[in-house]
Amino acid sequence: MFKINENYLKLPGSYLFSTIAKKVNAYQNANPDKEIIRLGIGDVTLPLSPVVIDTLHSAVDEMAHKETFKGYAPDLGYEFLRNAIADFDYKRRGADINADEIFVSDGAKSDSGNIGDIFSVDNKIAVCDPVYPVYVDTNAMAGRTGDYLPDLGKWSNVIYMPCTAETNFAPDLPKETPDIIYLCFPNNPTGSTITKSELQRWVDYANKVGAVIIYDAAYEAYITEEDVPHTIYECEGARTCAIELRSFSKNAGFTGTRLGFTVIPKDLKSGDVMLHSLWARRHGTKFNGAPYIIQKAGAAIYTEEGQKQTKEQIAYYMNNAKTILTGLKEAGYTVSGGVNAPYIWLKTPDKMTSWEFFDYLLENANVVGTPGSGFGPSGEGYFRLTAFGSYENTVRALDRIKAL
Amino acid sequence: MFKINENYLKLPGSYLFSTIAKKVNAYQNANPDKEIIRLGIGDVTLPLSPVVIDTLHSAVDEMAHKETFKGYAPDLGYEFLRNAIADFDYKRRGADINADEIFVSDGAKSDSGNIGDIFSVDNKIAVCDPVYPVYVDTNAMAGRTGDYLPDLGKWSNVIYMPCTAETNFAPDLPKETPDIIYLCFPNNPTGSTITKSELQRWVDYANKVGAVIIYDAAYEAYITEEDVPHTIYECEGARTCAIELRSFSKNAGFTGTRLGFTVIPKDLKSGDVMLHSLWARRHGTKFNGAPYIIQKAGAAIYTEEGQKQTKEQIAYYMNNAKTILTGLKEAGYTVSGGVNAPYIWLKTPDKMTSWEFFDYLLENANVVGTPGSGFGPSGEGYFRLTAFGSYENTVRALDRIKAL
Repeated sequence: MFKINENYLKLPGSYLFSTIAKKVNAYQNANPDKEIIRLGIGDVTLPLSPVVIDTLHSAVDEMAHKETFKGYAPDLGYEFLRNAIADFDYKRRGADINADEIFVSDGAKSDSGNIGDIFSVDNKIAVCDPVYPVYVDTNAMAGRTGDYLPDLGKWSNVIYMPCTAETNFAPDLPKETPDIIYLCFPNNPTGSTITKSELQRWVDYANKVGAVIIYDAAYEAYITEEDVPHTIYECEGARTCAIELRSFSKNAGFTGTRLGFTVIPKDLKSGDVMLHSLWARRHGTKFNGAPYIIQKAGAAIYTEEGQKQTKEQIAYYMNNAKTILTGLKEAGYTVSGGVNAPYIWLKTPDKMTSWEFFDYLLENANVVGTPGSGFGPSGEGYFRLTAFGSYENTVRALDRIKAL
Repeated sequence: MFKINENYLKLPGSYLFSTIAKKVNAYQNANPDKEIIRLGIGDVTLPLSPVVIDTLHSAVDEMAHKETFKGYAPDLGYEFLRNAIADFDYKRRGADINADEIFVSDGAKSDSGNIGDIFSVDNKIAVCDPVYPVYVDTNAMAGRTGDYLPDLGKWSNVIYMPCTAETNFAPDLPKETPDIIYLCFPNNPTGSTITKSELQRWVDYANKVGAVIIYDAAYEAYITEEDVPHTIYECEGARTCAIELRSFSKNAGFTGTRLGFTVIPKDLKSGDVMLHSLWARRHGTKFNGAPYIIQKAGAAIYTEEGQKQTKEQIAYYMNNAKTILTGLKEAGYTVSGGVNAPYIWLKTPDKMTSWEFFDYLLENANVVGTPGSGFGPSGEGYFRLTAFGSYENTVRALDRIKAL
């Protein structure tokens, strides 16, 4: 008799954004005349930039002719893309990462879930609290998190590192020593960042205690301040302790186009075993590459024109972020984030819970945001708005919020 | 101190096709003047069909405009694609599968590896021997296969079901009861199939012993004989015991375009728990959908024009299969497959091992095939050629083989 993975049964409720979608659909069905503005899920709204579109068309044309048709991609991804990444995202920032340490994938969500495969079940994870829920959920599926304690909204075997107003939305080094540390900066959902010297402290700590850092830098393109690192490999010693996850979703609008990559330096080892070899094995056995046409499109953003158009898109969203930040402050909210990230993090008013404020905002302003508690227990009493809407909708949403 | 997944260290050597690629590259580098013909890896060579190309272009244009731009896809895949699949691949064959039982993915390789996530480590798997190596390798990574026994070329905790000339290349019901049974028909690598009544026997057996069948039907489009089932759901009772994996790689040439799907009927349960719910949870948490433009392209093959063009491509490859079958027979080889599948399976001559014959063919005919032993111990002494080359190359490869 076959047996299921019982860890799945421990997961509380469904995935955060699925729950939100269901609530919004139910409200819309009950109120078909209401026009809902979605500043909830971190999904982009601007179309793909012209250089990406042109490249997609020409790559599609290549697929139409026998001479230029592409079948299975190389295991790690096409060299033209990995070379561009190594050059632009790493070497130009003084980070020592080679093209053969880069694994192209279908996105950072897949990678952040699948990376757990190469680690033993017997590892204790530490996560920022609140944070992108995929880290904890996928570790729960793997059986690494103990039991869910509904009263606390926590798992029994996870080290939570609170990131609240009291800690300036940055984690302290944990009291208990973790084996795997998930860091996400600029942070989803709080929009907070840490400086290079603060990140160096984490790298030093990881090397000292023998922990591995899984560094999610999906939002690095939104960094505007000087002393905020764009990659963990700007820090000395990161090659022996850090894996970095990156995405084309938020810098180039690839949420529905799907492309990302993971960096594993060859110096990152457990005894004699390179984690690079383990991930290469997983990549070669359980994945068959991102589509050629999309790898071509990804490489296009590293051209001069691509860089320019990408920066314009980010500027557009960051102008929205400013609109939200300013508007919320005018309306009397306590807010943070929005300077190095497309996320604005607000304290719910009148001691409402996060979900109470979600319902309040949906019903009274017809604006959708994301409850902070969905990102971890320390997110309770907070709420996330995103800058990914259109400028017009962002202004209208803020007008509605200010009018409440 | 972090700990790796030690199961990875038990894996012998590297993934079959990586090893072949390395050998071929080494030979080519040492012999730059030799023109190698590749009939090894199951990669297609015909360009994408015109209707797929047109659809890709128009979907790319949609991504260029704010009004038609698509961000994150629905968790299970777009309805337009799932509806087309449910209609063409299931309802029209009398198989009772609904659109909401279909999960669109980036390909059958990912799915066949990832599906293990929803099962306990404590399940015993049964596999056809030889078979596509991903099933065993991914179960080994999960710790489900015991230890590798190099002398036998087997894992200690896997039920191998020999499929050799002696069994007419079909598996017998195993003596020991498995929990999870992998079946792949038309079979990769042997090209063999089983009839509907034979498959019904497997479905009845699985329901009786409480096993789940993971049915890989990636090659169903190549079936030419009447009584060979195209989907396991043609069999009565399959809804309570079978998961089906399908691919766009081999019917529509999507090896470098990436699209597939998995079917999990809602009647397939462990106690009260639907496997459908578990896979939905995995899909929603560790995957973020196949690209919109590629889901559109996939749907295009279900149009009248798409069906016509797809059939033409398959006819082209099956003509190659006939060329190989006939040529090998003329050259005195013992061969099978090639009638309902793009794979031709031959007995190596003069008691050569599979890898000896691989080297012999590479060095003397400059033709690349795949060693049968790479697909399991019972593949030793066999060799796979594929019909996915060009007609011209296929003819030339066979001329070279006949001239040996």
